[in-house]
Amino acid sequence: MELTPEYFMKQALRQAEQAFAEDEVPIGAVIVANNQIIGKGYNQVEKLNDPTAHAEMLAITASSSYLSSKYLNECELYVTIEPCVMCYGAIKNARIGKLIIGCLEPKHGFSNFVQDSDKIDVSHGVLKEESKILMQTFFERKR
Amino acid sequence: MELTPEYFMKQALRQAEQAFAEDEVPIGAVIVANNQIIGKGYNQVEKLNDPTAHAEMLAITASSSYLSSKYLNECELYVTIEPCVMCYGAIKNARIGKLIIGCLEPKHGFSNFVQDSDKIDVSHGVLKEESKILMQTFFERKR
Repeated sequence: MELTPEYFMKQALRQAEQAFAEDEVPIGAVIVANNQIIGKGYNQVEKLNDPTAHAEMLAITASSSYLSSKYLNECELYVTIEPCVMCYGAIKNARIGKLIIGCLEPKHGFSNFVQDSDKIDVSHGVLKEESKILMQTFFERKR
Repeated sequence: MELTPEYFMKQALRQAEQAFAEDEVPIGAVIVANNQIIGKGYNQVEKLNDPTAHAEMLAITASSSYLSSKYLNECELYVTIEPCVMCYGAIKNARIGKLIIGCLEPKHGFSNFVQDSDKIDVSHGVLKEESKILMQTFFERKR
């Protein structure tokens, strides 16, 4: 059975919820190959004291390790919030073919900074509200 | 005694030479705080099968761990070759104040892709030839 984008984004949301539970900015990601999740990650910047420990980065490292390959050409990355410049660069470096974003991030999202003519298939809006509400709730609590 | 930019770039070059010795694209980086190296890294993409394992990323992770801080505001990053988009994003995320590049990389370097009005102090040309020759020698051997 072909699983839907909503199914995979829901798994990314579960990762984001895990981040939320650990008092991290709630962003989650999963990487899919052949209709199967091969790597996942949630933001762990605070816990690891590491500005590179974004959900996407951890998911890419996990997936490359799983496939024993530095390239993830045939893979899709699902992430709840639009990636930052660092994560976009990592997605390009890993040659991930398809990026599916839950909710756009007009301020810190990569598209605010990167001019790139290369073909990477980007879509957004899958379970957008769920991702957005999780972020809003997190930052409202912080205030 | 105040150590010179050439001194620190030489240490980054030693990291790059280590990458070369391990058959990795020879790029190295060191991070300096208060005239002292607090983290270093060399490219380990092949060995780790990890597209995120660039010299700068490993140096940032090491330095954040050393300082127990996700921000490296007062730090300088020395890198032998112009960072890619991913590494540039990481440098921004870590709030590194100063970036010193050995040799520019017109094709894959971040400045070819990123439009960013934020102030990050970037300079280049320190031991440029040494960094360039190391890269050229590596790729000539690969052919």
